[in-house]
Amino acid sequence: MNETATADGLAHPFDRATALEATGAGAFAGRTSEDYWNFTGPFGGVTAATLLRAATEHPRRAGTPLALTVNFCAPVAKGDFAIAVREIKTNRSTQHWYVELSQPEAGIAATATVVFAERRQSLEHRPLQPPRVPAPETLTPLPMQGMMAWLQRYEFRFALNMPQRLGQTPNAEPASALSHVWVNDAPSRPLDFLSLTALADTFFGRIFHVLGALVPIGTVSMTTYFHGDADELAAHGSGPLLGAADAKVFNKGYSDQTVDLWSRPGRLLATSHQVVYFRA
Amino acid sequence: MNETATADGLAHPFDRATALEATGAGAFAGRTSEDYWNFTGPFGGVTAATLLRAATEHPRRAGTPLALTVNFCAPVAKGDFAIAVREIKTNRSTQHWYVELSQPEAGIAATATVVFAERRQSLEHRPLQPPRVPAPETLTPLPMQGMMAWLQRYEFRFALNMPQRLGQTPNAEPASALSHVWVNDAPSRPLDFLSLTALADTFFGRIFHVLGALVPIGTVSMTTYFHGDADELAAHGSGPLLGAADAKVFNKGYSDQTVDLWSRPGRLLATSHQVVYFRA
Repeated sequence: MNETATADGLAHPFDRATALEATGAGAFAGRTSEDYWNFTGPFGGVTAATLLRAATEHPRRAGTPLALTVNFCAPVAKGDFAIAVREIKTNRSTQHWYVELSQPEAGIAATATVVFAERRQSLEHRPLQPPRVPAPETLTPLPMQGMMAWLQRYEFRFALNMPQRLGQTPNAEPASALSHVWVNDAPSRPLDFLSLTALADTFFGRIFHVLGALVPIGTVSMTTYFHGDADELAAHGSGPLLGAADAKVFNKGYSDQTVDLWSRPGRLLATSHQVVYFRA
Repeated sequence: MNETATADGLAHPFDRATALEATGAGAFAGRTSEDYWNFTGPFGGVTAATLLRAATEHPRRAGTPLALTVNFCAPVAKGDFAIAVREIKTNRSTQHWYVELSQPEAGIAATATVVFAERRQSLEHRPLQPPRVPAPETLTPLPMQGMMAWLQRYEFRFALNMPQRLGQTPNAEPASALSHVWVNDAPSRPLDFLSLTALADTFFGRIFHVLGALVPIGTVSMTTYFHGDADELAAHGSGPLLGAADAKVFNKGYSDQTVDLWSRPGRLLATSHQVVYFRA
């Protein structure tokens, strides 16, 4: 776990937002953070990272994250929550967990399955190459002053399909759902599995890009695969990641979203998918 | 549920393989099928379909499958198994379930999370178009006589990257992981969410295509998103689906796999992803 002090001498807001207190065997307590507040609840990426953190901090955890699926069952309300972590199976090279986040009034608000793995040397082959985009320093960050809190915790430098004055000039015809964006924690923070998990959920609703308009959306289920071990993430440091996000289909109220997350030198660190409710 | 009688007057082998007996509240009993036997256990696609079937048959289930994640925790042994189904949360439009398959000696062998949804009319937009491939009738099915049982329960007509004499002439350099294949139940069977779930797992290990050789592999976690409701699947009938399967990265013993599944007229019915262990 990185506990990165920021200029004010405090822990990074991401570390505070995902902080947990062990309250028993496989039991943790946490609290939502104003720093990552979204329209009606905490930013889903931080909820996902918090569920992963609970499994990661379990004393029996072995290995690093390989696969994480988070199901968003109900809005997380402002305030305290409890996380229950259950070890399902530990094998020679993989370990399976089930995690639930609940609140007194709402009941279970989110669940997750987590697979940790001991990664070993093997054939390395990388058929997918990163998109060719301008260096992040040459791109202007989206201005986030006055926006929802969670948007102010990230820096977005669009290389392709920057959202333009959303809602003011809806597209006459459906536009491309594909975007390329350099994204980073704000303030920056050394990359780890938790921040990578949250970064995978920072991509704007694909329907916004298609319509050129904001409509109600919500992630229903999200799965992330991690393609390197802790050393490979640490080697990335605290610079921006390149994200390529796209969608294949919008039908009967739901859309997919696919995300590839690349390190600066073009290593694929994670791939992530989600199914998203939309109203349009 | 389709219960399709085959020429011999019996239920289709897929319906028999996924058959469950309700044994209590949220409890089901099943038995592995020789018809879908793989190298060391049942074909994972049938295990995934059986987990989905358990949730589907729960009397409180509402809606049709939207998202399914299956985690393969341990080999399923030949014989009886129990499935426990737990309702996590039911909302106005989505319903979340957790499912576990266990056996007396091995304990929990597989888990799943399932989201069902009530799908409503909305904007329909299909940015991804199907690959252009020859009609299935013009392609010769892979001969499956003498192969593992589960391979004989499917018909594969490759349009791109047909596996050639695997293991006899390994590739000198890594070859493409992308394949296009028309795939169908053998004998054919009207498509439903269960058979679609299994079909999404019929794609050969991407590492086989890359190496031109068979090496040990195993799916660790698999997620499928369903992009239509029951009527849209029923409209497909019993013909072959077109599958496009690819991989983005092979590193430290694990690879991803992405699959798009298309109806004959080019509707994207499902997208599926998995993370796969390999030894090479």
